[in-house]
Amino acid sequence: MTHTPGLAARFIETLEARDWDSWSALLHADVVYEVPQTGELIRGRDDYLRFNQDYPGDWHLKLKRTITENQYAVAWCSWTGGGGSDDGETIAFLECDEQGLITSITDFWPEPYDPPPGRVSARINR
Amino acid sequence: MTHTPGLAARFIETLEARDWDSWSALLHADVVYEVPQTGELIRGRDDYLRFNQDYPGDWHLKLKRTITENQYAVAWCSWTGGGGSDDGETIAFLECDEQGLITSITDFWPEPYDPPPGRVSARINR
Repeated sequence: MTHTPGLAARFIETLEARDWDSWSALLHADVVYEVPQTGELIRGRDDYLRFNQDYPGDWHLKLKRTITENQYAVAWCSWTGGGGSDDGETIAFLECDEQGLITSITDFWPEPYDPPPGRVSARINR
Repeated sequence: MTHTPGLAARFIETLEARDWDSWSALLHADVVYEVPQTGELIRGRDDYLRFNQDYPGDWHLKLKRTITENQYAVAWCSWTGGGGSDDGETIAFLECDEQGLITSITDFWPEPYDPPPGRVSARINR
């Protein structure tokens, strides 16, 4: 069990900086990237690098919290697609190997939705 | 900083069991529950208990992973609304106080969406 404090933060910070060399260096060559919401599944550091380099829009990530335990970590961020104010939040679960290289990323991009009908009494808008 | 291994798992397991006494005992009286996607914000253990007891549907949660570090934890689950197979995934970020009581829950319920147009070449459906 490799404990890698700071790995999740470095993953996000190098991504935000488009520091592709430093970002790629955190990844295992056979890394698997998944987005359960879309069914996207990318295998391998090269394809995952290209996926990020080609991603449309002037996206930005701001780290809100990381939690790390043994080989697992999570990075919780706010993001914007270029509009200035935060567009939403994103959550990436990471898994790393004995060498501290990231072998797996499962990425969530939760979007706004309406609460179930009749639940308004329990709702307080900020 | 209180390290509370198992707290996130107990939070989900007692919720799934509708063991309201055990579940409530994990919560600070002034706990704050938030769903950023809907703007729902509930203050206090009593209102949060009622919110869950009254939640519509035969919902079930199955723990996939917990990660705990100091006063922070995350619980990643699959859930079903009663249909049998998994309907989706849910992610709850927890924060606890020095006594190990949960003071804050930020809950995400990511829903399916389509990847950006032109990204299909990087997409492999499972």
